[in-house]
Amino acid sequence: MRQKNSDKPSVRDRIVVAALDQFHTEGYNGRGVQEIADAAGVPKGTFYNHFKSKELLALDVLQLYIEGNSPEMLLDTSQPPLERLRAHFGFISRRYAECGFSRGCLLGNFSAEMADVSPALREALDKAFGDWTQGVASLLREAQAAGQIDSRHDPELLARFLINSWEGALLRMKVVKARQPLDDFYDVCFGVLLK
Amino acid sequence: MRQKNSDKPSVRDRIVVAALDQFHTEGYNGRGVQEIADAAGVPKGTFYNHFKSKELLALDVLQLYIEGNSPEMLLDTSQPPLERLRAHFGFISRRYAECGFSRGCLLGNFSAEMADVSPALREALDKAFGDWTQGVASLLREAQAAGQIDSRHDPELLARFLINSWEGALLRMKVVKARQPLDDFYDVCFGVLLK
Repeated sequence: MRQKNSDKPSVRDRIVVAALDQFHTEGYNGRGVQEIADAAGVPKGTFYNHFKSKELLALDVLQLYIEGNSPEMLLDTSQPPLERLRAHFGFISRRYAECGFSRGCLLGNFSAEMADVSPALREALDKAFGDWTQGVASLLREAQAAGQIDSRHDPELLARFLINSWEGALLRMKVVKARQPLDDFYDVCFGVLLK
Repeated sequence: MRQKNSDKPSVRDRIVVAALDQFHTEGYNGRGVQEIADAAGVPKGTFYNHFKSKELLALDVLQLYIEGNSPEMLLDTSQPPLERLRAHFGFISRRYAECGFSRGCLLGNFSAEMADVSPALREALDKAFGDWTQGVASLLREAQAAGQIDSRHDPELLARFLINSWEGALLRMKVVKARQPLDDFYDVCFGVLLK
């Protein structure tokens, strides 16, 4: 959580958790403050004691979602770089398998729905993708130093491409409601690109 | 257009064109029927003479968007396959450059926002992505026959991957508001994969 209201942390957290579920299944505009408050089991007035707007809530929701993807796995050097990258995407994949390959990535969903209309969300998404890119680029540099992948690749460019392609695979996964797009991603990225 | 109301084709078309602009800039849930009718310059009652629901309108909007991407370019054998594929993505890119790298792909936006909540849109998106994949796969088979790319690639798998990655690049483009994600796509796809 980005920020806690020290006198009522549990209510605030409950709202963020409920909103993550609501935004992830119905989209940002698919759910209003009333429905989020209902899902959290709090009166609408209580909602506004904790969040001045749905947009500010969405920033906390984004942070909670990112934490759930365990981005710190990328930095765990107890595993060789490429195995770690595969484990990272595998860990995230399991979140989608659990819900029938629906929902997709909240970063991607918010990008599609909100990047043009909410400067605050666009900025938060840019930072989130940027941080993720840095983590993957750092891992790719390790993989190059370890001779796991071609040293001629530009790690930053390849990291951006991998993350963008992953996001695209998750969009298609939502449409086909199956893991094929994720398998395609693994096949091409780990079988062809990261050699 | 999927279907025309023979007595008032121009009004129907005007609604679809206005809705494409509205959905593309604000998202499906970001605009209601009243706002779409206003943008088309027709009374709300007239809207419902032509479309029983916003969801049915969205199916026509999707079709109009796809036609605007000129998918027939993929089949124009007067150009060699890979040059044609690059020209295809280049043609679509120009649509985004014209609006400051915002909006993104309507197929991707609808996938993110609506694939889980509208079975009709999910089905239409699945067909659209499937048709597009077939076009690209056919081109890749040509490219293999012409010796332009490695014959060991599975053309269907590679076509799905390319389209999904393109969709991911467009999501990131909406966030960074620049063409870098498109350039990354070209660099990796045409510079590394399609060799």
